[in-house]
Order: sequence, then structure tokens, then C-alpha cells
Amino acid sequence: MAYRTHTCGELRSENIGQEIILSGWAQKIRNLGGMTFIDIRDRYGISQLFFDEETNADLRSKASKIGREFVLQASGVVRERSNKNPNLDTGDIEIVVNEITVLNKSEVPPFTIEDETDGGEEIRMNYRYLDLRRNPVRDGIILRHKMAKSIRNYLDKSGFIEIETPVLIKSTPEGARDFIVPSRLNAGQFYALPQSPQVFKQLLMVAGYDKYFQVVKCFRDEDFRADRQPEFTQIDCEMAFVEQEDILQTFEGLAKHLFRDVKGVDFKDAFPRMTYKEAMESYGSDKPDLRFCMKINDISEVVKGKDFKIFDEAEYIGGICVEGKASHSRKKIDALTKFVQRPQIGSKGMVYVKCNEDGTFKSSVDKFYSQEDLKLWAETLGAKAGDLLLVLSGTKKQTLFALGELRLEMGNQLELRDKNKFAPLWVVDFPLLEWDEKTNRFHAMHHPFTAPKPEHLELLDTDPVSVNANAYDFVINGSEIGGGSIRIFDKDLQAKMFKTLGFTEEEANAQFGFLMDAFKYGAPPHGGCAFGFDRWVAIFNGSDSIRDVIAFPKNNAGRDVMIDSPAPVSNDQLKDLSLGIVKE
Amino acid sequence: MAYRTHTCGELRSENIGQEIILSGWAQKIRNLGGMTFIDIRDRYGISQLFFDEETNADLRSKASKIGREFVLQASGVVRERSNKNPNLDTGDIEIVVNEITVLNKSEVPPFTIEDETDGGEEIRMNYRYLDLRRNPVRDGIILRHKMAKSIRNYLDKSGFIEIETPVLIKSTPEGARDFIVPSRLNAGQFYALPQSPQVFKQLLMVAGYDKYFQVVKCFRDEDFRADRQPEFTQIDCEMAFVEQEDILQTFEGLAKHLFRDVKGVDFKDAFPRMTYKEAMESYGSDKPDLRFCMKINDISEVVKGKDFKIFDEAEYIGGICVEGKASHSRKKIDALTKFVQRPQIGSKGMVYVKCNEDGTFKSSVDKFYSQEDLKLWAETLGAKAGDLLLVLSGTKKQTLFALGELRLEMGNQLELRDKNKFAPLWVVDFPLLEWDEKTNRFHAMHHPFTAPKPEHLELLDTDPVSVNANAYDFVINGSEIGGGSIRIFDKDLQAKMFKTLGFTEEEANAQFGFLMDAFKYGAPPHGGCAFGFDRWVAIFNGSDSIRDVIAFPKNNAGRDVMIDSPAPVSNDQLKDLSLGIVKE
Repeated sequence: MAYRTHTCGELRSENIGQEIILSGWAQKIRNLGGMTFIDIRDRYGISQLFFDEETNADLRSKASKIGREFVLQASGVVRERSNKNPNLDTGDIEIVVNEITVLNKSEVPPFTIEDETDGGEEIRMNYRYLDLRRNPVRDGIILRHKMAKSIRNYLDKSGFIEIETPVLIKSTPEGARDFIVPSRLNAGQFYALPQSPQVFKQLLMVAGYDKYFQVVKCFRDEDFRADRQPEFTQIDCEMAFVEQEDILQTFEGLAKHLFRDVKGVDFKDAFPRMTYKEAMESYGSDKPDLRFCMKINDISEVVKGKDFKIFDEAEYIGGICVEGKASHSRKKIDALTKFVQRPQIGSKGMVYVKCNEDGTFKSSVDKFYSQEDLKLWAETLGAKAGDLLLVLSGTKKQTLFALGELRLEMGNQLELRDKNKFAPLWVVDFPLLEWDEKTNRFHAMHHPFTAPKPEHLELLDTDPVSVNANAYDFVINGSEIGGGSIRIFDKDLQAKMFKTLGFTEEEANAQFGFLMDAFKYGAPPHGGCAFGFDRWVAIFNGSDSIRDVIAFPKNNAGRDVMIDSPAPVSNDQLKDLSLGIVKE
Repeated sequence: MAYRTHTCGELRSENIGQEIILSGWAQKIRNLGGMTFIDIRDRYGISQLFFDEETNADLRSKASKIGREFVLQASGVVRERSNKNPNLDTGDIEIVVNEITVLNKSEVPPFTIEDETDGGEEIRMNYRYLDLRRNPVRDGIILRHKMAKSIRNYLDKSGFIEIETPVLIKSTPEGARDFIVPSRLNAGQFYALPQSPQVFKQLLMVAGYDKYFQVVKCFRDEDFRADRQPEFTQIDCEMAFVEQEDILQTFEGLAKHLFRDVKGVDFKDAFPRMTYKEAMESYGSDKPDLRFCMKINDISEVVKGKDFKIFDEAEYIGGICVEGKASHSRKKIDALTKFVQRPQIGSKGMVYVKCNEDGTFKSSVDKFYSQEDLKLWAETLGAKAGDLLLVLSGTKKQTLFALGELRLEMGNQLELRDKNKFAPLWVVDFPLLEWDEKTNRFHAMHHPFTAPKPEHLELLDTDPVSVNANAYDFVINGSEIGGGSIRIFDKDLQAKMFKTLGFTEEEANAQFGFLMDAFKYGAPPHGGCAFGFDRWVAIFNGSDSIRDVIAFPKNNAGRDVMIDSPAPVSNDQLKDLSLGIVKE
């Protein structure tokens, strides 16, 4: 006998009268008078099983002893429900059971398998296989499958080929820390797990595979950081014989397709594009959340020279205008001051101006500024009566950052960051290099293979900081979802870039010699883009954490608490690998 | 200006007269009188560029200096060729070039980029990015993409969900050696790379995802072995609420779909099924090559008792009948004897019988056996006049193995193993356990989660060796392409299985405690199948080695010679990981 003829989600009134078999889990058991109702659940839905004392006392007695999460096989006849449930797809019918088999028992689960569960994060992660039974978790996992499918369909139709690149590669000191894998057959030597298939996809361009993609696991051995996973999934893409515009068009097409196919959202217009400079100056971030406006404005010109020492001495003074919140209480404003003073934001203080409904202004710096002065502030920040101005000062870099954070916080408080609204954009014209105070050298803002803008090439020697790159990020709702660049394909320019980044020729050769070699044999112009798949799914799923859309995530300390990993290995294993553990 | 308006493979007579731009690599440059012809190549094909002295001497001079594998951009007008090339899709046209740009130069490649190259395996692997430009390699990589796409389409349509399981998991001593990954944040602890997602897919069944699949990288730290890679790709599948028959039907459907969709081969009938016992006894292998018959037959009954000591003392005597080869020379037969005497086959000698066309017999044991006797042999082995019988003896296990190898060798010699012919089958009813002489305990033939056949359950205590499993392999052309089993889903039976395999309760808990725990909370009946994707692609591609269909394979010593990995890492890296290298 087959385990089932239907799933628990598919029976409808059309099936009334049919003999069917269902298999699934006991979601809920209700004993009412001489009757027992069991909700049987599988990943497709829930159906109601019906037993009554009168028809079959033994069967009903058996059913009444079934516990939550028992695995059942029930055969019976579909009939119309007297008491229909419009919230359930199968709510018009129930199954009058004539045979029930307990395929497996279950202990009482450590938390309820319901949409809103009583289980905290830790216990749910310990029993992730039970957490995965809950509808919201299941929906995220299925959404992930659908998105991967939809992405592959689109790219395949656009002529891209999925090519698997190796997982066991070679460690490079550039960038984040690698996970390494000791080689047993080559004692004292190690593979590394890829942080991205960057070099391999560039080699594929040299090899002539002009449209490559891969949905691929990548690895980064980072320190504790909120919502990062040591292993994560990337949609990795590369194209040859293209310019930046070709790439933006191609992947804007992908994103629009995905929005339409998976979320039913149709973006008719082109996505906005914003330079890195504008993003930083207007939103204090290179990944602006455009679901709401509340732009940052520089008010230095307007506020200086009034003997307010803090502003007079500041490199930069900027503010945001919070619409309609002049009525904010002192307590609320104090809380915002505390928010920007938190060490991770680092402002010294905050100045506010209330633009009262009656046309007057009330500020925390009334001592220094007249009503006329404050009116000018309000005009500069585009405020109208009833609005609240929040102003920060300090170094330009820190203040823009703090204003960006304050803006997001106000967006949260005013509920302007709706999870069902999507605001995608491209951020373009990133700087090529950034100066690193710690190591006293330049770092590649994107990576060392990113091409400078051709018109900035000459600045590379004279004024490296002002060189922009043909690099771009794709941002949705304040999250960086993807990014990429046009690559260097000339071996001399690549050598120069390595030199600018402080590599000796020997270091460059040891780490990237094979790429430099490859560039000798006809490298085509190329560029690409990579998307953080986990984060994209999380955003589409309305999840705050990528853990929600990963079947078996690790916690923030990089542990899988369910399987208890990482874990010690045997001495024999270490001996085979010629390794020893060095205690501090 | 865009880099190209068309690919190098798409222009036809319909395009004659059009102004077009192509980009690609210089495949061939021919200077003939006042003319230069350049074949420009990309992954889509080849087009002929035309330059002549008369029209534009400068341009022609520039073209004549272009070298092999230079990256070119050419614009010009499509015209009809006077000398058409029917072997080329674009052979009806050529491009009269009016502008040519060298996008990048190339040194002379270290081997020719042609279908038949002058480069040996080693140099091609060193420059894999050049090897990948060759048509046969490109075709394999594209075939791989198509097969993955086709598999995903089929499984998605059948209701399967692709779910990513973790790559950083936990080491288990069972099975082959794990690659391990030191954890920096948990000093002295390690992750392991998965040999398969076995346990995770079973947890997904417990979690209710009744149809799971994944195209997934797996890892095995094996010793040198021909045509194995330390990382390989698996099509991993699992289903809940199914019996063996459901699984065979589902994946036979997948295989037929793939044959049809990718190879254009339509299998109308069900694939043959053969028990493990029959496969071993008739083909000397659990993965019989059914492209040809030449079955092994037991002739012990017929040959014993004639004072030929070797046969009389042998546990088993068996033979094969090689059709029409009675005419084989002494030299050829001697070579076959040497073949079976090689240490990896291990037979002591070989007996032959020639069934002459005139009805007489000539054998290497004429001293012991009469013409009547030999006639009986021939009948038992199904031979007719003109056939050659090859007979081996010894222990049953070794002799069947040797006969199996001899059968394949004869298949090769007689060219019966046509790469364009496909003979798929299921091998079923595998034994659950095999006795391991070395460790003096039972090993799971498939893996420790495989369910014994319900009707054999009682034998587990009394006669474990005779217990069969609900396990099956999928074989094409003598290669094991896939395999799977119905799993144990009862925690007590699983505990008993671990005990039978020599695990103490503590060991079982330490390694698989989380699975045993999961089984307490309503595990459904389930089973699955996994396919070796690399090998399946290789077979469809007609390749002898899986390396042919992997973009960046490692050599048989597990090294990537192109990137020179594995390699030493810095002392700082080791220190961060609390590791030291222990010299012997």
C-alpha cells in the first residue's frame, strides 16, 4: 500500500466521496464528546481527520491516544465539513477515517510547532529539524528554492553557463581571513576555502566563457559580527566583451525578473543610480535606504561664525529634517542624543531645532542663534512648520556616518521602513583605493582586480585617492545585495595595481602569478557582479536575519549547536595530517 | 561603441550586407598574396575576417601582424564567400573588415588551441585556461551546464525543493577520511567537509521537506586512486513517505528525462533490474556493463571429477564464451593469461577451449578432458562452433571478480563498449553488511543508516551476513552513477544497527546523537538516492576521465597544478589557529 494518495494540502470539495490516504504529522488533537479531530500536517498543508465513538469505538480510542507530532498514515473518505474553515485551503472538507497507523511516535516537542512558537532562538537552533517544521521557516526555505530556480532560469535564458569552480583552492593573505584545509598527502601544506571564485571566474573569461555564473558557497573566517555566517551563498557572475553599462543592464534585468517572478512586483522604470559621493553625503552610507527621503544636508555655511565654538571648530555640520515631529518630547530627544553618543556611533552631542507650528523655533542652541538664524537652518534643511531638525557636527566622515545612522533610526521610529516596500538602486563611481591608517598603505576598496576609470588612469601616480573605479553596488532597502566591477585585463596595469597596493613583485607573483600568466595569453575585457544570495532571500522574505533563510545556520560564534561543531578530532587524524595543537 | 553586435558563431547568409562588429580570439591567420584571412573565435563559433592589400593596405598590413590568440575587435560588412566552407556554421559568409582593434596581445601559446592539440596532459593542466578554449573541452563544460539545468528542471517540476546543507560540518570516523578545517574561534576544534549531506538530508525528512534535492560539492580525503577527485559533485536526493519502488520510479524518470533532453535517446521500456547476487554471478561486478552480453557461467558441476587437480580443488570454476574467436592466436591467448595474472586481478592461470568450426575442440587441458567433456563445457557456456571459451578457477569471490575483468577486457578488444550506446540498469537487493577481515567487524555495505529488508529483520541477530538491504545502485555502461537506500527511521533499530557495526553506545551518541535525538520526534519513513554528477556527465560526454568535465580539476595527487595548491601558509596563520606542523 502506498503511504499516501494525496498530500495534506490538496483535498478540496471536488474530492468529496473519494477514498484517500494521507501521511503526515499530528499538528493538533481535539477530543470533543464522542469525537476526535486530528489536524494532520505535511509541508503542503493541513487536513482534518475525523473519528467518532459511534461508528468505530476502537478506532476513536486509538486516535484519542495520539500525541502531537506523531507520524500518521490515515485512510478514509473525504466528506463535506459541517463547520467550514475559510482560513484553511482544505477547510471545506474533512476525512472520515477508517484506518489509522502510527508510523512513528514522538516525544513531546521542546517547543510548540506553531507560527508563533514559545521556543527561544537557542532551543530552536538546537532542534532546528523541529523549527524547520514551522510554517514561517518552511516558507523561507521554499522561497529560497524558488529564487535560486528563477535566477538560474533567467541567466540560462540570457546565455549564461553555470560552471563549478573549485572549493579547495589556495590561501591568499589579501582580504578577509581564509579557512584553511590541511592536506594529508602534502604534509605541511594547506588548501584554502574560497572567499569568492573571483580569480577563477576571471580565468574563465580568459578561457572564453563570456557569460559565466554560479550559485556558490563562499567562506570567510571573520570575528563575531552580527548576522554574518562563516559560509554563505553567492550568485557569482562574470561577462567578457562588456562595459559597465552592459553589466548594469544585464543584472538590472535579472533583479527586475526576480521581483516580478517571485514577489509579483513590477519595476517599469530603470533603477535609480547614485554616485558613491552622493550616497555618502546625502545618506551617510554607501547603501542608502531609499524607502524614505529624509536626506542629510550640509549646513556648515549657515551655522558658522556665530560664536558657537563647537560648530565653528567642526570640519562639518549637517542635519536631517524629521517631518512633523516638532512635537517630540524632551525625553524622546534625549534618547536620540544618547543614541548618537553610543560608542559604535561616536558623536559628542546633538543639536535640535523644533520648527513650531506658529512659525517660531525652539532649539538647544538658542543662546547662540537668533530666530532669523534658525529660520535659515530650516530653509537649508527644507523644513516646514511642525518639523524637527536634528544636527550633528565633527569630522566629515564620522558626522555623515552618525547622521546616516540617526536617519535610519528615525526611519524605524516613524515606521518608514516597510518590509513590503522595495527600493532598489545602483551606487556607482566608487573610489578605487582607500588609505588604511593601521597598515599605512592603500587597500583596494573593491578588490585588487578592479579597473580604474580610464579617464582617471593618469591620477594613479599623482593622486591615487581621487581615482574612481568602474565599480558598482546593488542596494535594496539599505542592504548591499550585490556589487562588482570592470576588471583590469592588462598585465602591466595589474602589476602596477599590485605595486600601488604595496605588494612586492615576489608577493604578487607568489599569490597571483597564475592570473598574471593568464593575462599574457589574450585576456579579453571583462567585468562582473556577485550577489549575496542569503541576504537577497532574507529581504524578499521580510526577515531581519539571514539565519531565517538558511536551513542549518551557525550561530554568531560560528557554531552549529545542533550537531555540536566544530569539535575536537582524534590524535590519529591530527597525526595523519602532520599537525599538532599548540596551547598558548 | 559596443564590443560586438554579434557572436562569432551566428552570422549567416541572411546577414549579408550588414555592418557588424565581432570580438574574439585569432584562431588562424593566413596571408595569401595580397590578402589576409583571420579566423576569429569565441565560444559560439568561428567567423572569417577578410583583408586585402588593394582596398586598404594599412589595414591589411596591420592584420598580417596579428598573432595566434590575440584578442580582436573587428568591424566590417558581411559578404557572401566565393569559397564556401560547408563544415562551418558561418561558412557561407565572411566579413570584409574596415576596422580592426587589438584588444589584447598574446604570447605564442604553449600548445595549439585545436581539437587535436599537441599539448600533453600536464602542460594543458598547467594552462587550463588555454585548454578550456579548445572545442572538445568547451563542449564538455557546456554539456555539464545543460545536464545540471535539465536535472533541476525535472526535479523542480516533480515537486522537489533544492535545499543547501552546510559545508562546514563535523568529522565522523565512519567511512572514508574527512578533510578537516581548523576553527580559529574555537582553538583545538575542527569542522569537517561533508563526504555527503547524508545526515542533513535525513534531518530534512524529519523536518517534513518530503522531496529534497541538492547539486552539491562533496569531499573525500582518499589516497591516490585513478580518476577520483578530492572534491566532486553529487546530485543528492531524498524523499519521505516512500518505499523503494517509489524511489526507483522517480529517479528512473529523471534518468529517462535526462537521456531524452540532453542526448536525444528515448528509453521506452523500464530499465532492467538485477539483484546484486545475479550481477556478481553473471558479470563478476556489482556494476555490470550491459552493452554486451558475454555472461559468466558457473561450470564447476561439469568440470569436476576428471582428475584435473586445480579444478577439483577449486571452490569455483567459471567461464565466459567469446563469440567467433576460436581463431585467436596462441599469442593473443597468452596475453589474456598474463592479463588475469596481473596482481590487481590475481588469477593463477587461465584455461581456454577453442570450439573449432569443424565441431572439434582444442583446449589447454586436453590431457584431462575428452572431446565429449569439452562439448559439455561448450553447451554449459552456450557456445557454438567458432567460439572461444575462457575459464578461470579459484575462490568464488576472486574468480568472479577476475572473470568480470576478463569479460570487460574482451569487450574492449572486440569493441563492444561503444561510447554512443547506453545500457542503464538498477542493481537491487544489496547485502546490508560485509565482514571486514582487517578490523574484524562488520561494515555497512551502503552506510549505517540503510534499512534491512523488513522480512530479513530477524536474521540480524542470527545470520547478519545474509540480511539484504533495501539498497540499490544505478549503473550505466559499467559505471556506478548513483545509489541509495531506504533508511532506518526507528531509533531503536538505528541503535541496534550501530551496535552491530561495533559502535559503543557512547561512540554512537557522540557522532550521531543529534540524528538519534531527531528520530525521537516523529521521523517519517524515508529513503533516497545520490548520483555522481561528474561521472554522469563524463559518460554522456564520452569521456574516459571525469577530469575532462571539471573546469579546474586536480591531478591524481590532489594538486591543482595551475594555482599550485595545496601550499604552505604563513606562521601567523597557523598561530591564529593554534596549530603547529609536526615533522616526522
